[in-house]
Amino acid sequence: MKILILNGVNLNLTGIREKGIYGSLTLDEINEKIKKECEIKGVECDFYQSNHEGDIVDKLHEARTKYDGAILNAGAFTHYSYGIHDAIVAAEIPVIEVHMSNVHKREEFRHKSVISPACKGVICGFGYKSYILGVEALIDA
Amino acid sequence: MKILILNGVNLNLTGIREKGIYGSLTLDEINEKIKKECEIKGVECDFYQSNHEGDIVDKLHEARTKYDGAILNAGAFTHYSYGIHDAIVAAEIPVIEVHMSNVHKREEFRHKSVISPACKGVICGFGYKSYILGVEALIDA
Amino acid sequence: MKILILNGVNLNLTGIREKGIYGSLTLDEINEKIKKECEIKGVECDFYQSNHEGDIVDKLHEARTKYDGAILNAGAFTHYSYGIHDAIVAAEIPVIEVHMSNVHKREEFRHKSVISPACKGVICGFGYKSYILGVEALIDA
Amino acid sequence: MKILILNGVNLNLTGIREKGIYGSLTLDEINEKIKKECEIKGVECDFYQSNHEGDIVDKLHEARTKYDGAILNAGAFTHYSYGIHDAIVAAEIPVIEVHMSNVHKREEFRHKSVISPACKGVICGFGYKSYILGVEALIDA
Amino acid sequence: MKILILNGVNLNLTGIREKGIYGSLTLDEINEKIKKECEIKGVECDFYQSNHEGDIVDKLHEARTKYDGAILNAGAFTHYSYGIHDAIVAAEIPVIEVHMSNVHKREEFRHKSVISPACKGVICGFGYKSYILGVEALIDA
Amino acid sequence: MKILILNGVNLNLTGIREKGIYGSLTLDEINEKIKKECEIKGVECDFYQSNHEGDIVDKLHEARTKYDGAILNAGAFTHYSYGIHDAIVAAEIPVIEVHMSNVHKREEFRHKSVISPACKGVICGFGYKSYILGVEALIDA
Amino acid sequence: MKILILNGVNLNLTGIREKGIYGSLTLDEINEKIKKECEIKGVECDFYQSNHEGDIVDKLHEARTKYDGAILNAGAFTHYSYGIHDAIVAAEIPVIEVHMSNVHKREEFRHKSVISPACKGVICGFGYKSYILGVEALIDA
Amino acid sequence: MKILILNGVNLNLTGIREKGIYGSLTLDEINEKIKKECEIKGVECDFYQSNHEGDIVDKLHEARTKYDGAILNAGAFTHYSYGIHDAIVAAEIPVIEVHMSNVHKREEFRHKSVISPACKGVICGFGYKSYILGVEALIDA
Amino acid sequence: MKILILNGVNLNLTGIREKGIYGSLTLDEINEKIKKECEIKGVECDFYQSNHEGDIVDKLHEARTKYDGAILNAGAFTHYSYGIHDAIVAAEIPVIEVHMSNVHKREEFRHKSVISPACKGVICGFGYKSYILGVEALIDA
Amino acid sequence: MKILILNGVNLNLTGIREKGIYGSLTLDEINEKIKKECEIKGVECDFYQSNHEGDIVDKLHEARTKYDGAILNAGAFTHYSYGIHDAIVAAEIPVIEVHMSNVHKREEFRHKSVISPACKGVICGFGYKSYILGVEALIDA
Amino acid sequence: MKILILNGVNLNLTGIREKGIYGSLTLDEINEKIKKECEIKGVECDFYQSNHEGDIVDKLHEARTKYDGAILNAGAFTHYSYGIHDAIVAAEIPVIEVHMSNVHKREEFRHKSVISPACKGVICGFGYKSYILGVEALIDA
Amino acid sequence: MKILILNGVNLNLTGIREKGIYGSLTLDEINEKIKKECEIKGVECDFYQSNHEGDIVDKLHEARTKYDGAILNAGAFTHYSYGIHDAIVAAEIPVIEVHMSNVHKREEFRHKSVISPACKGVICGFGYKSYILGVEALIDA
Repeated sequence: MKILILNGVNLNLTGIREKGIYGSLTLDEINEKIKKECEIKGVECDFYQSNHEGDIVDKLHEARTKYDGAILNAGAFTHYSYGIHDAIVAAEIPVIEVHMSNVHKREEFRHKSVISPACKGVICGFGYKSYILGVEALIDA
Repeated sequence: MKILILNGVNLNLTGIREKGIYGSLTLDEINEKIKKECEIKGVECDFYQSNHEGDIVDKLHEARTKYDGAILNAGAFTHYSYGIHDAIVAAEIPVIEVHMSNVHKREEFRHKSVISPACKGVICGFGYKSYILGVEALIDA
Repeated sequence: MKILILNGVNLNLTGIREKGIYGSLTLDEINEKIKKECEIKGVECDFYQSNHEGDIVDKLHEARTKYDGAILNAGAFTHYSYGIHDAIVAAEIPVIEVHMSNVHKREEFRHKSVISPACKGVICGFGYKSYILGVEALIDA
Repeated sequence: MKILILNGVNLNLTGIREKGIYGSLTLDEINEKIKKECEIKGVECDFYQSNHEGDIVDKLHEARTKYDGAILNAGAFTHYSYGIHDAIVAAEIPVIEVHMSNVHKREEFRHKSVISPACKGVICGFGYKSYILGVEALIDA
Repeated sequence: MKILILNGVNLNLTGIREKGIYGSLTLDEINEKIKKECEIKGVECDFYQSNHEGDIVDKLHEARTKYDGAILNAGAFTHYSYGIHDAIVAAEIPVIEVHMSNVHKREEFRHKSVISPACKGVICGFGYKSYILGVEALIDA
Repeated sequence: MKILILNGVNLNLTGIREKGIYGSLTLDEINEKIKKECEIKGVECDFYQSNHEGDIVDKLHEARTKYDGAILNAGAFTHYSYGIHDAIVAAEIPVIEVHMSNVHKREEFRHKSVISPACKGVICGFGYKSYILGVEALIDA
Repeated sequence: MKILILNGVNLNLTGIREKGIYGSLTLDEINEKIKKECEIKGVECDFYQSNHEGDIVDKLHEARTKYDGAILNAGAFTHYSYGIHDAIVAAEIPVIEVHMSNVHKREEFRHKSVISPACKGVICGFGYKSYILGVEALIDA
Repeated sequence: MKILILNGVNLNLTGIREKGIYGSLTLDEINEKIKKECEIKGVECDFYQSNHEGDIVDKLHEARTKYDGAILNAGAFTHYSYGIHDAIVAAEIPVIEVHMSNVHKREEFRHKSVISPACKGVICGFGYKSYILGVEALIDA
Repeated sequence: MKILILNGVNLNLTGIREKGIYGSLTLDEINEKIKKECEIKGVECDFYQSNHEGDIVDKLHEARTKYDGAILNAGAFTHYSYGIHDAIVAAEIPVIEVHMSNVHKREEFRHKSVISPACKGVICGFGYKSYILGVEALIDA
Repeated sequence: MKILILNGVNLNLTGIREKGIYGSLTLDEINEKIKKECEIKGVECDFYQSNHEGDIVDKLHEARTKYDGAILNAGAFTHYSYGIHDAIVAAEIPVIEVHMSNVHKREEFRHKSVISPACKGVICGFGYKSYILGVEALIDA
Repeated sequence: MKILILNGVNLNLTGIREKGIYGSLTLDEINEKIKKECEIKGVECDFYQSNHEGDIVDKLHEARTKYDGAILNAGAFTHYSYGIHDAIVAAEIPVIEVHMSNVHKREEFRHKSVISPACKGVICGFGYKSYILGVEALIDA
Repeated sequence: MKILILNGVNLNLTGIREKGIYGSLTLDEINEKIKKECEIKGVECDFYQSNHEGDIVDKLHEARTKYDGAILNAGAFTHYSYGIHDAIVAAEIPVIEVHMSNVHKREEFRHKSVISPACKGVICGFGYKSYILGVEALIDA
């Protein structure tokens, strides 16, 4: 089993910007933790981050045949990228939407996710643990 | 550590009604699985289900001093019970909102949760595993 | 054949409050008339009223296996109780929504029924006759 | 007593188009059943169908002095014809709105009836029986 | 003269939860103050609180013949319980809506009260004094 | 100079239905008064009424070359007939929208006119005098 | 008989600003024409214009006892001044809303008049003739 | 193969009214061009235009058994005639919606088509060529 | 302690206009009653009324340093004057919003107060007693 | 070149109220700074502030012929005064909308400016510097 | 004559993903068919696809001087990319919007195209034939 | 001090496309003018333009540590890119939103900026001078 951890716009600054919201672990440190979790479960995992919507789409297309599932934190793309919505549908593998913060406690625009209907499930509000829970959910699925 | 597994309206029929959406495990069978998970983690857990909004509120009030956290699948109360919203805030313990189905794939009215802003986080779409993931998230929190 | 006549919030005051809208027959007198109609048709019928949403839900769950159909005047629950909506779906028997008044002639909030999509059909505007027509429709169904 | 059975746009194709929704009885066959019911009740009835909104209005005007009440299935006119709304008000006889399907289970646009506030009552969801129930309701009124 | 002080969902935790918003007097202490005020005015008063919407409805029905008026802090029920709205109308005694906090300064969902149109008047923003003012208003009415 | 007085749906019942709103003059009596007014002003006028939207459209097309202007009381067509809107634009003569009642004092749906943007001006609220004022306005234009 | 011609915000610039929309007659010249019309009809008339909402309100209060009716072109106040709405109701004399331009052909915000429901009738789109027609309508009323 | 070219409200004035929008070819001239195109493709075609919604519905019913497909420019009916929507569904032949102008560049009300969901496809913005393209699309379908 | 009783647009006509809604006491008579109440409580009070929004703003600015609190019945300004909203915030003294009628029982536009979020609290529905209750609340505050 | 610096409702309290938002310079001190800037640029400038919408309108009318441009901070009038909108259009000189705070970071109601479409441009968020930038922009224009 | 065939996000997976909606021809196969059509018409054509919005914009800028027109299937960009909208306007060549599916039959979000107002025309619902029809339309334009 | 001048989608065509709106200076010519202004103020400045949202985000991330502030004309990204909104917040340097045209005078969709709440301030409507004013504002900040 092989899974993809996909991070969208601005997530490269995790652990650097707005630590009150996103915590103080960097994306690399988070990925390290995910990697360990995957090793325990005997699952292979790859990591990818981009601030370019098109890169996320391309990667989801690639995931179609190369991965058994994906964890996707699309960042702000979550709220308007119907392109990513359609790419998830097209990927035809289980994709799990995760957010570190509880988006429902924040600005109005973060309450609407245009990608949720295309995903298998959604996990939000648990900091970097949202990813770990997502990995478990994916392996179970 | 002691946690409460709280189920709202119509969830007593899980495994009996609409199996295509909610799976074929009954609520007792699901609770059994949660119990096992809790035993492994060394956590005590209690279970409660009611079709009465007021019972859920009363139980959350009780949880205030008696539990370290709660998993809440409010069923359809999710979409209009500001009373439960306020009870979660008043409880002042971490409460995790879970749903077995991915509510964002279903009818329009299920897309809006009035309790999410009061919860620590949200997990939906993984069948009975949503509860298990919730328990883990709660223990981590 | 056995059917259930289910009345929701405030309907216990029928014939007492706002007679201009609901007529001057009490709920018992209406039930008496329904009973007679049922006897003529050779159908057994039970009656239940509660001002508690949870009781209506519980009764619909009970109806699942005990009745062949139900007549439901949910009163004001009609306009917000998604819990009752889901209970009707879960009951998996034909449920007919009735109202004594023509709700579309009254306040804006009464124009929207959240339970109609879960019911077999809707009858409104005929005073206590709405129930009688509902019984006939149920027997035909 | 003399009543009018009025059918609006596309109802001439009943029993021919979309049988899954409207059943397989033709409008003539339905009218035959209504006629029988009326004979039993000792009530005279006339039938009229048109795909022209103006014809429905004209017929309602005629009904003003010629009939004691009317059953109206306006078809899709239900959702936009304020002209028919006003004609019902002007007719000053009880008019009962009927639909064969439960319109609340179908497309969004069918959830709104602009004629309901002008009618005595509404019956929907019982196939051709909706007409029969309407006739009874009218005779009772 | 005899009046009823009616408190809805979560108000049993007044003085315990969110003191910044609701003050540090418990509901019993507030009731004590109301009682004194009533004694001064020579008015008899009873107290009731419940987290169950149906209980509030039942109590309002009882109030119909037993009390000359009521003070109602419905808590979060204020924002969705059309059942309580209808119960107030059915009670046919003056009911005064009170809130301790100024609801218009808080979350969007608290700005809309579905029960105001059924009440005689509304008082909000004065902490426990909102009740005292309500009692005075009721006695005057 | 030659003008057309055009009346839409249900206006044939003027003076017969809802006299409280529309007055007790029949359409013929109103037309008689308009005729006199026109004779005084030395203007020729024709009259037309139909409950069929298509007839109103056809007449407006005819008016294009045959009349110098028109007075239009479209009745309830006012609120949804974009077909009449486009016919007025196509007619390329001044068309004046009139209503006998002040539509802004009545039901919500009457507050929106879809034909106003296509007309030269609007006159409402003066009973049959709305027509007379319209005729004057047209002659001035 | 004595009437008041009331002009609101920016109407002092009529004939000076935006002549394409409002024509090239100044307010004084328009008033002169209204005066002549009134003399012909044997009606006394006064004129008042202000850019201050409060002045318009004060004048309507004065009109209550001093005039038999009023013509009101409230300018942009039309679209938000509920204060003027209430002053018209309080004045208890017939007030006729006029506009020189057809407001329904212009910006979206001009399509909504908050004062129309308080007025006897509305006339718009005939340039300065809107006033003359209003005077006639008022005398007739 | 036999197809129907159906034109709705106001399209009889094509080439006469608003040439800037609709071009200067009359409907007959356009039909002539369509006819030629059909002859080239070996397809028989009939033409029908009416300003009466009911006629369009009747013709679509007739088309059900008599034609293999239809081209429909419903004119302004496009924006409100759910009656035509249902007639297209009932016709059970491919119907192609065409418009000469690009409706999305024009007034807000033209952006919404209530008939599109019932049609096979939509073509707009190419003047009379929209029809020609529609014919080709129909033959291909 | 010194307080200001501030009345906005149209309140000078209280007791004269619409007595069914506002009662038959004039503003002077109401002020007299408030004065007596203030004397009993040993509080000094001034009165001000204006139909000019700007005057209300000016007075609130003056109140900033001259009064310990204010009672404000802004009349229809309540529903649109963000200027008064900001003046209340700027005044930095407790301001209590009062209305004689229960605004929530009246026209839709009266349901929204733009000044409530800036006020300490709101009292409505008790006729002139709303002012007396406001004075008490202010003294308590 | 001669310009007008126009300040609307509540801006007389700048530097006194809510310093966290508007800074601690008084309006006079700000005007002093603007004056200096104007002297450097060789431009004459006048200052005017009023809490009365009508005064702002009057001043804009005066500006029509007396000034070459204006800087306008309308305060809360920004959000509802269509009267000022129309006065800016009527003034036919460039008017620049300025705000000291970034209104888009504040309450929802401040996000909508009804006067922006009438202005040459908008500058907000730079404290008193917003005026200085406005002056520069005006001189450039 | 030289035209550009531009495909946006996810269209590289045509013929691979969701064949029920988009058919089983791959994008290359579709392009081959377009190419043949162009050769017949004597028109040169280039092809470009990207999942990156910026690439589509860049290509439209290039098209400005290099092509006589373009066919654009923007995929999901259609529903939010105002950037592409502006690029089409800036390109100043005729651009035709095409979709293989009838977007009006699908999810709500696909009913709104933000690019239609910038395009010459729209063609949707004919599978790969939508492109062929677009090419013809472009050549005609 | 070092600042970044950032231009988003389609701004590379400034001076080439739609000169009536954006003026006839090219982006290079505008940048030249900004450079001169910066040299006068003794400020270093860099320039960057891209039609790719992701590039703008990347550049804002880079700006975090490399620049003291930024001027951002995001073009159409302004209206939907929450990704850029979040990048501005993450950059933690003052960013000033500028537009050459007054966006509030143009299409509806341009009235809403999703990035304004993240920026220090907004300047629009002054052609290329908007940038110059932005630079000044930035240096002052």
